[in-house]
Amino acid sequence: MRNYAALTEIHRELYRLRHADAILSWDDATMMPASAGRARAEALSTLRGLIHQQATQPHMADLFAGAADESGQLQPWDQANLREMRREWLRATALPQSLVEAASRAESHSEQAWRRLRATNDFAGFLPFFRDVVRLKQEAARALSEKLGLSPYDALLDAFEPGMKVAQITPLFARLRAFLPTAIGKTMARQRTEAVATCAGPYPVDRQRELGIEMMRRLGFDFRRGRLDTSHHPFCGGVPEDVRITTRYRADDFLAALYGVVHECGHAKYQQHLPQNWLGLPVAEPRGSCIHESQSLLLEMHVGRSRAFAEFAAPMIAAAFPDLAATEPDAFDPTHLLRQLSRVRPTLIRVDADELTYPCHIILRFELEKQLVDGSLHPEDVPDAWDAGMREMLGLSTRGNDRDGCMQDVHWPAGMFGYFPSYALGALAAAQFFRAAKRTCADLMVQIGHGDFARLDDWLDRHIWSQGSFRSTSELIEGATGVPLSTEAFEEHVERRYVQGEG
Amino acid sequence: MRNYAALTEIHRELYRLRHADAILSWDDATMMPASAGRARAEALSTLRGLIHQQATQPHMADLFAGAADESGQLQPWDQANLREMRREWLRATALPQSLVEAASRAESHSEQAWRRLRATNDFAGFLPFFRDVVRLKQEAARALSEKLGLSPYDALLDAFEPGMKVAQITPLFARLRAFLPTAIGKTMARQRTEAVATCAGPYPVDRQRELGIEMMRRLGFDFRRGRLDTSHHPFCGGVPEDVRITTRYRADDFLAALYGVVHECGHAKYQQHLPQNWLGLPVAEPRGSCIHESQSLLLEMHVGRSRAFAEFAAPMIAAAFPDLAATEPDAFDPTHLLRQLSRVRPTLIRVDADELTYPCHIILRFELEKQLVDGSLHPEDVPDAWDAGMREMLGLSTRGNDRDGCMQDVHWPAGMFGYFPSYALGALAAAQFFRAAKRTCADLMVQIGHGDFARLDDWLDRHIWSQGSFRSTSELIEGATGVPLSTEAFEEHVERRYVQGEG
Repeated sequence: MRNYAALTEIHRELYRLRHADAILSWDDATMMPASAGRARAEALSTLRGLIHQQATQPHMADLFAGAADESGQLQPWDQANLREMRREWLRATALPQSLVEAASRAESHSEQAWRRLRATNDFAGFLPFFRDVVRLKQEAARALSEKLGLSPYDALLDAFEPGMKVAQITPLFARLRAFLPTAIGKTMARQRTEAVATCAGPYPVDRQRELGIEMMRRLGFDFRRGRLDTSHHPFCGGVPEDVRITTRYRADDFLAALYGVVHECGHAKYQQHLPQNWLGLPVAEPRGSCIHESQSLLLEMHVGRSRAFAEFAAPMIAAAFPDLAATEPDAFDPTHLLRQLSRVRPTLIRVDADELTYPCHIILRFELEKQLVDGSLHPEDVPDAWDAGMREMLGLSTRGNDRDGCMQDVHWPAGMFGYFPSYALGALAAAQFFRAAKRTCADLMVQIGHGDFARLDDWLDRHIWSQGSFRSTSELIEGATGVPLSTEAFEEHVERRYVQGEG
Repeated sequence: MRNYAALTEIHRELYRLRHADAILSWDDATMMPASAGRARAEALSTLRGLIHQQATQPHMADLFAGAADESGQLQPWDQANLREMRREWLRATALPQSLVEAASRAESHSEQAWRRLRATNDFAGFLPFFRDVVRLKQEAARALSEKLGLSPYDALLDAFEPGMKVAQITPLFARLRAFLPTAIGKTMARQRTEAVATCAGPYPVDRQRELGIEMMRRLGFDFRRGRLDTSHHPFCGGVPEDVRITTRYRADDFLAALYGVVHECGHAKYQQHLPQNWLGLPVAEPRGSCIHESQSLLLEMHVGRSRAFAEFAAPMIAAAFPDLAATEPDAFDPTHLLRQLSRVRPTLIRVDADELTYPCHIILRFELEKQLVDGSLHPEDVPDAWDAGMREMLGLSTRGNDRDGCMQDVHWPAGMFGYFPSYALGALAAAQFFRAAKRTCADLMVQIGHGDFARLDDWLDRHIWSQGSFRSTSELIEGATGVPLSTEAFEEHVERRYVQGEG
């Protein structure tokens, strides 16, 4: 098993170099002063070029040929690891190093420019950066398409969610488009009669941060192997041994920051519970972005917006803001917290959207990015297309307001085309997982009401976290829930919580 | 000039990879949770191995041979750059990649263990890590010694201060040993009659931090290209485009943190003013550790402890702690601040030592590390040797108190043997530079009294910062001050400020 062993050594080294990439990227978004951006972009570009070079060493072709002959002797996890190593290698060898470095440089500059220009609503200023990113992404998509025998956009999807195709997403999204508008309408009609007590703060940032950290502790985030910081756009970064999550704070609303923390905590717990014995090898990586998003949405939406969780969290929240809770107690009781958290209303910003309008934001992005990749939509026409899509789907216009329109997300500035569908697919998977977990553990919600997440963690660990990339996404979903990914559990959840208002 | 150009390209790439190393190392000391240490050590080791591999590519021998033929066509700065590239290459090729990786790993583990074990005064627990570091450092010193034709310890000195030798340091340190005890005795006798008003705080950490940041602004630190954070041991890290300085806080003493900031700010301004047009190439690197330390000590000791600076800083300080300044105004007036800052008293901790006893700390470390490198002192015997040295030089014992003895500094745990002499050499250079600057700019102290550092910056920029590594250390010192490095200006300074007490 000499060939297989040699390949694992190469991948362990790649894992260590990607650690450097991950921490530098985190630093870029959380700590780095703005004027250091150019030097950082060069450093990341060179590092990624070198990682690419290490991932495509010419003798790897022979090693993979040799390892194929050895695969009969390999144990199942090693076989899966070989499959994942080969997958990575096929994708890497499709791209020349010069393209990897150019794309990295363009994406760093574009993301840094976006942070600055979004604030001033300056799409025209951002356009040259965006054009570069789109052009290089098209080039990469073409190269991957030829190598992998996939359409260019499918080749990008595959980077985040292995094997996922437009053909599989389209019917799921069609079903969402068919069923959501009615559900949204009914829910809004029902909620119109519902009183919601709110409190506009001010919520001091340091108290919000302490509350977030306490919540992370209760949710089982391991602070010996991770941190909470602040960034322009919340994310979960770092490495499994050192998970770095972020949120952002507003003085008039603590729920956005807190539920940002809960969401990222879902990602973080997945990272922290990947199979420890295999860390450093591709088989121990998270399965893909659909499963990853299912973990964050399961915590944020299914756990975090349940009546049981609200009962557990309300006293913690009130204790974090004692003066406000004393003067406006209603706003901090579980019922009103839940009403605030489940309010359905078309809005402009994806990350602040409710659970029902959220998929509409995704469908818009999915439609536009497919066209950006195939060239039928030009970067300069994105603001108009965005506005049209928002008007059609949610009845809102973003004309002249690109900051809250096509410039709101980091994904495109950072070159992450093909990621967005994962959010909606993750929402479907989350509903399916949580339904299955509740069926297995009869008193799951009682435990959650006590702030005890051990049973839930145990179920997730067994079916998802500890599996790493051992099985495919569809195997993982069917293994855990008994059925393939569909909209059914999500529809059931929407009907119960939103249309019927059963908490 | 094809060969020279190819070499500069390699070095630009190395510069970008070292950016990654610098930020990861900063993160390790400031942000990283403890349990991530093992993964980080592996990542840094692999990255440094790769940097070493890039710095020793086999065809570089031919490129250097070819570049030597081209050197007649090169402009002076390119010639100096070629000299510095060659110097780096000679040192790098002396060491096998396996040793570089092993040393990096051992040093990461040792530094991480030191942070933990220093707190519990556990030298025995630290010893296995320390042994590894010393053994690998001896191995590196031997390999460098053979390649460079220097003694093993001189070969380590040369890493930090190019060309510096024990033979040059010994007479300077002998002179310090001869003259300091008398100066210390006289100063302490004089100060015994001097009343010093002090205030034990408490000084809230966030106010101390704000004061530090305001001081950095006044001193001209460019926050668009740098940050202030907290670490176990103050340092200046990062890269010239993004300088990361740190300090540490005590509730009962704001001066330690503030003057830590002033010290690191001296390093930072050097970094931020390196020759911009040459950044990315060795000729734009700081000249060496002696010059680097001269910049921090010039600011901390000569500027920061002058009467003029105290007049400028006192109102800023009082404004940072208004309640304390109102109740104990004497402790915050310039005279008493200066008295606190120039108090001479043998103490255990180097970084908190006064300007007169400080060189004694260095001489002790210099003597011991020479013996550690040549094997005449074993790691397990360091606590006893330290105690003996401290008793001889400063009349203090560290028996049973290794935390404040041989475990107090990060340098040995981090494998930085050969660095310590730079602090004392830097103190001599700082005195010499500041005397020269005052002679050139007659009203320098008046400007400083107004918090205006433009004239001083201009002098430093012209003679030191903008020179990068264009000239050698001795050329730099003689060019700026007219005389070679000696103890004379330092002695004059000590006599005036400490023995005579002339502020």
